[in-house]
Amino acid sequence: MSTISPASRTTPTPTADALTTAGVRILQSYLEGEWQEPAKGSAEPVPTFDASTGEPVALVGSDGLDLAAAVDYARTVGQASLGHLTFHQRALILKALAQHLNSDEVKSGLYEVSARTGATRRDSLVDVDGGIGVLFTYSSKGRRELPNAFAIVDGAPENLARDGSFGGQHLYARIPGVAFQVNAYNFPVWGMLEKFAPAFLAGVPSIVKPATPTAFLTEAAVRAIVDSGLLPEGSLQLVSGSVHGFLDLLDVRDVVGFTGSASTAAIFSGHANVLSGGVGLTCETDSLNAAILGPDAVAGTPEFDAFVASVVTEMTAKAGQKCTSIRRVIVPVSVMDAVIDAVGARIDARVTLGDPRAEGVTMGPLASTEQKAEVRRSVEALLAGGGRIAYGSLDEPRVTRADGTVSAAPSGAFLSPVLLRFDDADADAVHEVEAFGPVASVVGYRDLADAVRLANRGGGSLVATVASADASTVATLVTGIAPFHGRVLVLDRDDARSSTGHGSPVPHLVHGGPGRAGGGEELGGIRAVKHYMRRTALQGSPAVLTALTGQWRAGAGVQADLSGAGASWSSPSTASSPSTASSLSTASTASTASTASTASTASTASTASTASTASTASTGSVDPAGATGASGAEHPFRKPLSRLRLGDAIDSEAREISLDDIGHFAEFTGDTFYAHTDEEAAAANPFFPGRVAHGYLLISWAAGLFVDPAPGPVLANYGLENLRFLTPVSPGDAIRVTLTAKEITPREKEDYGEVRWDAVLHNQRDEVVATYDVLTLVSKE
Amino acid sequence: MSTISPASRTTPTPTADALTTAGVRILQSYLEGEWQEPAKGSAEPVPTFDASTGEPVALVGSDGLDLAAAVDYARTVGQASLGHLTFHQRALILKALAQHLNSDEVKSGLYEVSARTGATRRDSLVDVDGGIGVLFTYSSKGRRELPNAFAIVDGAPENLARDGSFGGQHLYARIPGVAFQVNAYNFPVWGMLEKFAPAFLAGVPSIVKPATPTAFLTEAAVRAIVDSGLLPEGSLQLVSGSVHGFLDLLDVRDVVGFTGSASTAAIFSGHANVLSGGVGLTCETDSLNAAILGPDAVAGTPEFDAFVASVVTEMTAKAGQKCTSIRRVIVPVSVMDAVIDAVGARIDARVTLGDPRAEGVTMGPLASTEQKAEVRRSVEALLAGGGRIAYGSLDEPRVTRADGTVSAAPSGAFLSPVLLRFDDADADAVHEVEAFGPVASVVGYRDLADAVRLANRGGGSLVATVASADASTVATLVTGIAPFHGRVLVLDRDDARSSTGHGSPVPHLVHGGPGRAGGGEELGGIRAVKHYMRRTALQGSPAVLTALTGQWRAGAGVQADLSGAGASWSSPSTASSPSTASSLSTASTASTASTASTASTASTASTASTASTASTASTGSVDPAGATGASGAEHPFRKPLSRLRLGDAIDSEAREISLDDIGHFAEFTGDTFYAHTDEEAAAANPFFPGRVAHGYLLISWAAGLFVDPAPGPVLANYGLENLRFLTPVSPGDAIRVTLTAKEITPREKEDYGEVRWDAVLHNQRDEVVATYDVLTLVSKE
Repeated sequence: MSTISPASRTTPTPTADALTTAGVRILQSYLEGEWQEPAKGSAEPVPTFDASTGEPVALVGSDGLDLAAAVDYARTVGQASLGHLTFHQRALILKALAQHLNSDEVKSGLYEVSARTGATRRDSLVDVDGGIGVLFTYSSKGRRELPNAFAIVDGAPENLARDGSFGGQHLYARIPGVAFQVNAYNFPVWGMLEKFAPAFLAGVPSIVKPATPTAFLTEAAVRAIVDSGLLPEGSLQLVSGSVHGFLDLLDVRDVVGFTGSASTAAIFSGHANVLSGGVGLTCETDSLNAAILGPDAVAGTPEFDAFVASVVTEMTAKAGQKCTSIRRVIVPVSVMDAVIDAVGARIDARVTLGDPRAEGVTMGPLASTEQKAEVRRSVEALLAGGGRIAYGSLDEPRVTRADGTVSAAPSGAFLSPVLLRFDDADADAVHEVEAFGPVASVVGYRDLADAVRLANRGGGSLVATVASADASTVATLVTGIAPFHGRVLVLDRDDARSSTGHGSPVPHLVHGGPGRAGGGEELGGIRAVKHYMRRTALQGSPAVLTALTGQWRAGAGVQADLSGAGASWSSPSTASSPSTASSLSTASTASTASTASTASTASTASTASTASTASTASTGSVDPAGATGASGAEHPFRKPLSRLRLGDAIDSEAREISLDDIGHFAEFTGDTFYAHTDEEAAAANPFFPGRVAHGYLLISWAAGLFVDPAPGPVLANYGLENLRFLTPVSPGDAIRVTLTAKEITPREKEDYGEVRWDAVLHNQRDEVVATYDVLTLVSKE
Repeated sequence: MSTISPASRTTPTPTADALTTAGVRILQSYLEGEWQEPAKGSAEPVPTFDASTGEPVALVGSDGLDLAAAVDYARTVGQASLGHLTFHQRALILKALAQHLNSDEVKSGLYEVSARTGATRRDSLVDVDGGIGVLFTYSSKGRRELPNAFAIVDGAPENLARDGSFGGQHLYARIPGVAFQVNAYNFPVWGMLEKFAPAFLAGVPSIVKPATPTAFLTEAAVRAIVDSGLLPEGSLQLVSGSVHGFLDLLDVRDVVGFTGSASTAAIFSGHANVLSGGVGLTCETDSLNAAILGPDAVAGTPEFDAFVASVVTEMTAKAGQKCTSIRRVIVPVSVMDAVIDAVGARIDARVTLGDPRAEGVTMGPLASTEQKAEVRRSVEALLAGGGRIAYGSLDEPRVTRADGTVSAAPSGAFLSPVLLRFDDADADAVHEVEAFGPVASVVGYRDLADAVRLANRGGGSLVATVASADASTVATLVTGIAPFHGRVLVLDRDDARSSTGHGSPVPHLVHGGPGRAGGGEELGGIRAVKHYMRRTALQGSPAVLTALTGQWRAGAGVQADLSGAGASWSSPSTASSPSTASSLSTASTASTASTASTASTASTASTASTASTASTASTGSVDPAGATGASGAEHPFRKPLSRLRLGDAIDSEAREISLDDIGHFAEFTGDTFYAHTDEEAAAANPFFPGRVAHGYLLISWAAGLFVDPAPGPVLANYGLENLRFLTPVSPGDAIRVTLTAKEITPREKEDYGEVRWDAVLHNQRDEVVATYDVLTLVSKE
């Protein structure tokens, strides 16, 4: 998206001194846990104005604020306070925060401020409620899709040794620095929260820098957040005003999230600390988003109507100041006129331009008069590049004032919707000039390949809509444009009413796009959380990998205690902070002490792994945890979470399966599949030697073999995963099961948690018959 | 890693003309499907030399070669030929290629050429066999972890509408351009194949540019590959020589993979086509990798010995010319002397420097005399920065010549192993100067926090080793350094023998690191394949998302045919190529034809979705496919893959469960858990109203309800996934199951494939009782 710097303001404005004298307040910044004002320094604060009336709102400046101290504060205090919270604990804070902002009192206050940016109630709904929705979604996804832990295990375990004594595991740990977030002016609340939420969930403190023209709304939102008292110290800081030179302060520990112009993004990308210093940078920039009307979607079809409605929505919502707005309306040459007429008619019927505080207004002004001038310049460039105005004009529009009267309002930032038409679909301007306001251009395509080519001429976009109900058309268009787009929406009669819309990023799906769109990705659920973490490949023995990941691996034995179960990631960064360095003597002590503990760990691991190997011959319940001397031969189902350890296991007796058993099971369940009931047919099957036991019989019997029937801490088996039947079981075979605690996830707000058990079924020849995970709920005490 | 440009050669060398006259051949490039030689142009070809003898090997130049045509050839011919192959088909080609290169004849030829680069047999094993191993691993992972399709579905389906009529799905599709791969001189075979394999599997053609000093080995490998005739046209091109200006030719369609110096990486990163043109760039550059010895790992422990052995291996293997070599040996201050002594003693005992073709030689020369000079300069810089030589020297070493004699060999690129010692662990040089040869430096740490701090002073590294058997030490060190490292290996007595080693990237795990290491990731199994694909969030109705992803979603109805089942991604990029554009009349025809097909698709979808909703009331087997008129009420288990369609379903009768059934099942299976057998205890459980049916009983009965028992195309149920029990089933409840074909994966080399079925169990109140996926093997015919 395009932004302009406050410096480009051309009309004379009152001086900061005059405004201060007139009672216009100076926006504060929230740094190092305190609200701070800029010093009276060399840089004058910049005034901001009500978008509809032109009245001054606030002065914005950061002169004298100590950005380096803020970065340090985030890296130390912020990292430490967030590091003590698990993903679930952070997620619950996000939920409480969302509820706080969602209260009538807080929200109505934000809506009032939002109106001063030119936002209608509907626009504020997208910005304010949309931002709160992001918090709710990340809270929910954080608890459902992440472990109640400090790091994220990525992908399957990799075994790298024949004997299983060495393996690998990818793991995401949070970055040890700060998330520096530079936002655009158009969504002062959503824009902040959509970056803050995933960073917070990852455990990384944010420094937020809003765009100046609407910084007063971001400040109001941060004030509401701070007042809630919900956030851990140092997890959120706000800089109102310039952050000139901030990249000089950052290094390989930190990441920057930027939404704004491609030119600014290129400056950031070219900074030495990004090019070679290791600062992570995610950009979301200009995007000439397209909407393509399929050849089947002729006038009169539901797709045509939905397409036209979408174009009008994207032109007028937020006065077209959305990175995701449709800029290029790509339609069959033959229906260009029909589309233009329909869009114009719908605007005439639906759109009332005016002060958002007036009754009946459906489209507000741009955010500032500078932006209005900028959009006009862009439209002039489009006209010079071959476009013609097909609807609307650049004249000063008549608008509904706050008091309901209708007149021109030159002091406001009003602009009429403008639809352009390019008869030359290949004109460079239409694919390169983004008029960041209520402006779109119609171009015609010859055939589907031409439509794909034109859409991709955007050089990478955030989103495109394909409106068609023809499967082949949809396939051709979507597959052709997907590699150039972050998001593609297929609009048809089935989803026209329920679609979340072309212009609305949803927190569940990635928001961003390749090339001109900045090459970044935001949102997308947990994907964005990982942007604030770093993936490392860990290699080691099963015991070490179990301790580091909190997921038990075969051969690991029993973990000594839960503190090793991934919990070591709770505050990794503090280890590199000199202030928390343990002393030399501590290290020496550890070194001495570790000799004993090392031996004990090693012996535990090898004992357990021996037990596990040797378990073939064992009968009855053997608990390798016995090797630690802590729990004897106690059945692991008798251990509440407080005592259960990764690696606690039961190795069952063997049970022989007869042909009668198989026949009986077939009869009882109704599963008379021939492999279980017809010897000859079963033998003809490429996978079976003859009649075999049902897979369901095997896992049912396995449950009978491992279960401990009396009431106890295990409350329920709520599911099963990754079941594979590896060796058929014939009559006369005997099966036994080994069940081992693999992952332990206490729930934050319940007195129980989830335990995942590794189940392995063997036959009497020690062949693996089946493997799976059993999912249970287990009491904490 | 450091590289030097041929231009920096300082000693006078024979001219290209003289060498050509002397019979030294000019390396060819393989472009546009042909072996080509550079034109006699303005740029003289650069000579390369045998690393041990200094004899000229080949001349390398690219003058007059048409790089732009090569890029265009990859984007058109290469994309088209790869686009017709599924992941599994490409994976099988990789396997055949690996087998071809692995043949004695081909491999011994490569080993012979490899020796000329200074590689010992062991070094060649890493380079040649290691490269072949990457092909095998990607072949295997491609078939096991990817669908037999053209695109990768990423993550779970997201539902975005209350009524389920709109949703989202992330999907990876290949980029529509070329993978341009600029490699380093140290691993001429592995370095090429580790980038080529994932790109090929993704379906993206490669242009490979080897580093000049060892380009003759890469050329030999490419010649073997081309001669195999296994690769589809345009999937691999080779440029021997300079590729000056190649970034000017690339755009948002393309990606660049670079291994080399940080300074070159910064130039690439700063190119406009990367900064704002959307060219993807992955870098793997300098890295001052650390190995940390834990305080517990004192002399005499297995960890101490393993640590010392690892340091020596990393100093001497490939003469230390590995991006992953240990450069910083970080040990407790108190054991610095012991470590230095042990490393020196092991080098003395184990390392014989010489021509790799001589018997008994265990360490060869550097790859070139330029590199030798460069390493000497780096060591001088380390000495100037506070280091002292603790073992070895910079003097011209005595070496074993090919004929077995021992003498100095100034014409070769030999250098003795050099171990430095820094008494000031904070000296900048040790953390910043990479001597890319048989050189490492020892520094001492005070405590664990100090060790972490020192390791992280590398500013981001590829890999670090932690040698310790103490769980707490391991946790502190690993969590402290992980965010600064791409890979962390924990070395202890349990994995010392089986470890793949500090310096060996394995294809299963990511290779790369943050900050100074380049910020990129390579390998890591399928993760690297995704580097050559682009993630797009698709939004649409269930029917549309099913057709685009090849994975059935609830509400989608039956797919019209398999061509829509994700197959539309087979050649997406061709749609954007003008040469394959369908004509205007085709589009018009499609438009006309689509009206009918649209209506039919829509009605199918809505009928099916109605049927699915209405199926509550239905009894017996209802096949929504009947709506298409194609298959009547045929049980989907009677359909081979050739006729089975996504969405083909069976909706079973209901079956009531009695208390006797539950009691009988408990007795038969032995699963007498109290929730099934003890009314009072069950009612006291927070999740159950009283005695409930076993989950295993429910899924066993469900199988009885959906199975079609007679022999037919369904061969076996090989597993089950994602089972969740959502509503307890009490005596008197009746369950029914809906089973729907969700994903169809034909196997390439078998006459059957895999079918994943979506299973949903309802009770008589239409509450969902359980959901899961049933995995089956089904015949193609």
